[in-house]
Amino acid sequence: MPKIPRNRLEALSDGIFAIVMTLLVLGIEVPTLPANVTPIVVGDYIFNTLLPQIGIYIISFAILGSLWLNHNIFYSIKYTDVKFQILNMLWLMPIAIVPFTAAFVSKYGQYQFAQLIFALNMFIIGVIFYANWNYAVKNELLQEPAKPYAKMIKQGNLILPILSLIAIAVSFIVPEGCMLVFILVIFYNLQSYFKN
Amino acid sequence: MPKIPRNRLEALSDGIFAIVMTLLVLGIEVPTLPANVTPIVVGDYIFNTLLPQIGIYIISFAILGSLWLNHNIFYSIKYTDVKFQILNMLWLMPIAIVPFTAAFVSKYGQYQFAQLIFALNMFIIGVIFYANWNYAVKNELLQEPAKPYAKMIKQGNLILPILSLIAIAVSFIVPEGCMLVFILVIFYNLQSYFKN
Amino acid sequence: MPKIPRNRLEALSDGIFAIVMTLLVLGIEVPTLPANVTPIVVGDYIFNTLLPQIGIYIISFAILGSLWLNHNIFYSIKYTDVKFQILNMLWLMPIAIVPFTAAFVSKYGQYQFAQLIFALNMFIIGVIFYANWNYAVKNELLQEPAKPYAKMIKQGNLILPILSLIAIAVSFIVPEGCMLVFILVIFYNLQSYFKN
Amino acid sequence: MPKIPRNRLEALSDGIFAIVMTLLVLGIEVPTLPANVTPIVVGDYIFNTLLPQIGIYIISFAILGSLWLNHNIFYSIKYTDVKFQILNMLWLMPIAIVPFTAAFVSKYGQYQFAQLIFALNMFIIGVIFYANWNYAVKNELLQEPAKPYAKMIKQGNLILPILSLIAIAVSFIVPEGCMLVFILVIFYNLQSYFKN
Repeated sequence: MPKIPRNRLEALSDGIFAIVMTLLVLGIEVPTLPANVTPIVVGDYIFNTLLPQIGIYIISFAILGSLWLNHNIFYSIKYTDVKFQILNMLWLMPIAIVPFTAAFVSKYGQYQFAQLIFALNMFIIGVIFYANWNYAVKNELLQEPAKPYAKMIKQGNLILPILSLIAIAVSFIVPEGCMLVFILVIFYNLQSYFKN
Repeated sequence: MPKIPRNRLEALSDGIFAIVMTLLVLGIEVPTLPANVTPIVVGDYIFNTLLPQIGIYIISFAILGSLWLNHNIFYSIKYTDVKFQILNMLWLMPIAIVPFTAAFVSKYGQYQFAQLIFALNMFIIGVIFYANWNYAVKNELLQEPAKPYAKMIKQGNLILPILSLIAIAVSFIVPEGCMLVFILVIFYNLQSYFKN
Repeated sequence: MPKIPRNRLEALSDGIFAIVMTLLVLGIEVPTLPANVTPIVVGDYIFNTLLPQIGIYIISFAILGSLWLNHNIFYSIKYTDVKFQILNMLWLMPIAIVPFTAAFVSKYGQYQFAQLIFALNMFIIGVIFYANWNYAVKNELLQEPAKPYAKMIKQGNLILPILSLIAIAVSFIVPEGCMLVFILVIFYNLQSYFKN
Repeated sequence: MPKIPRNRLEALSDGIFAIVMTLLVLGIEVPTLPANVTPIVVGDYIFNTLLPQIGIYIISFAILGSLWLNHNIFYSIKYTDVKFQILNMLWLMPIAIVPFTAAFVSKYGQYQFAQLIFALNMFIIGVIFYANWNYAVKNELLQEPAKPYAKMIKQGNLILPILSLIAIAVSFIVPEGCMLVFILVIFYNLQSYFKN
């Protein structure tokens, strides 16, 4: 058989990310304001409803954006095979469920079990992605110029699973600390990208 | 006229799959928990609501994922023509209806007619896909290196229609057995992919 | 400036078609059946609710599918320019509104004004598409091997606007006849594609 | 590492635009008309509900369409890097929120704070896009034939941020004037494209 190009695997993944990221906006509802809109009503709506909703939108978008940026590493792959496509499909499963776990933690973030569901989701995403990359390296799917970087990327893929375990541990001390771990890492990543 | 490249047929198909697979998450609702969240409330929610919903999510995602992996065989096609595109469009019709039949069988799975609707959906998908591939082979749309595999793939495309007929037969004995047939095949497929 | 390739115009169009076609499934709701599901309840649901909904799904899907197949003619274009992209954007506007006009005509099909809204939508789609192709021909955007077919395609693009005008006229005699005109044409097109 | 091609950045962006533009149709609801549909009921629905909703649909679609057309300038980029991808991701964040701010301004357009939210959204989009292009120019990501146009495009990217500031200023005099500024610019752009 001719070798399987990677373009459709990327197209499906990009499509799922685009939809998941866009569905996040459905979490910001147009409010029904009272008939008499005073500055107090507006201020109350903006600070107690709109800004928190936008905050959650930004965090969820940033997490999904980071995962997509990681997935971009697959541009260093020349061909895929059926097993690699199945592994990628397994990885898209917990990705497409993020709108649910994000909405759940944003509604019940004060409870540990909500934080655990979110952290578990991230842990599964991280572990499957680690397996994906490992499979690609072992089965010689990489392009020649990417090979010297394979090991470094492999170690980088450990960050999300390890981070998730730390977040799970933190949730036993302070429930809200769990989500905070992910937020801190996003900002750490951003500044490290722009530094070097 | 210049020959029709297959890229847009793939783009439309990938887009429809990405949306259908992502819409599945809308089946997992954020619950409204009582004000007093005790461990019993949490356990009850997780085991009686969340896990069954995630189970249906995984099964539906896996079925759609398998269908998408099958569709990938079209990478072995060099050019399409108008009739082939129409056949592909006819195939996308029962694909895009899967979120409905999956939700239906997950709500009324104890009734045979719900299982029949799902199995019928799968049967139609399978038959049209079989016709698609046959058309591509007969009209010389395949790339040269794929031709020796054409017959084997043609026989493989019979699996879904035959399986659906078996599932329909099983539903006359045990309604729930129908869905079970599809689940068993997913796991069988997965292990056979990873064995060889 | 380097010339604008047509790939993103196609990607946006394919994405919009994929979403519009998939949103149609939201028109088929999972029903709430009574506690006591008798064969009469099932038969009533299937013949009076499910089959009509699936009928509308198939018609809408087929109309959008035909429009997408027409749009495929753009594979014969080598480069686009900004004006062509704006014309394509103007064309996508009435396309993305089809889920609304289709739902409207399926709910209020017995009234002439609902049929008129649908036919008007199709008329606008047809006229803008005609203008699109004309622009491409006049501004030498076509690939060399497509040029001898340009005039034939131009005439073919008149079918949808003319048909819409006929459907509008028919709606003044029998409201439901309007939709029927579009259905007949879909079947006519299908058989003519498969004949030659 | 091999250089990062720009195709997936475009695919994600096109996907998000396609979904955002298609979600706009959800703002046009199929009405529940009274049992006795008289010409007065129809006329009232069309002029007081349908046409205003379609008006907002057209304006939102046109604004998003213009932003997408601007983004097309990235076809003049040869390769991306990680920072450029992050900047593009930051730009998609306020893009994917447009369905909310558009719905908000269409519901509460008579209040200045609603107009300010919309104008602020546009301002952020404009500023991040300006930063995107600047980064591409400074880091030599442009293709050779695009370089002489880089400065002109850079200046053009100032239009949206400046325009948003003007719209914000206008909103302090007449709230509705804010939205009007954006509409006027769309029509100005359209006629200037078709003139030369």
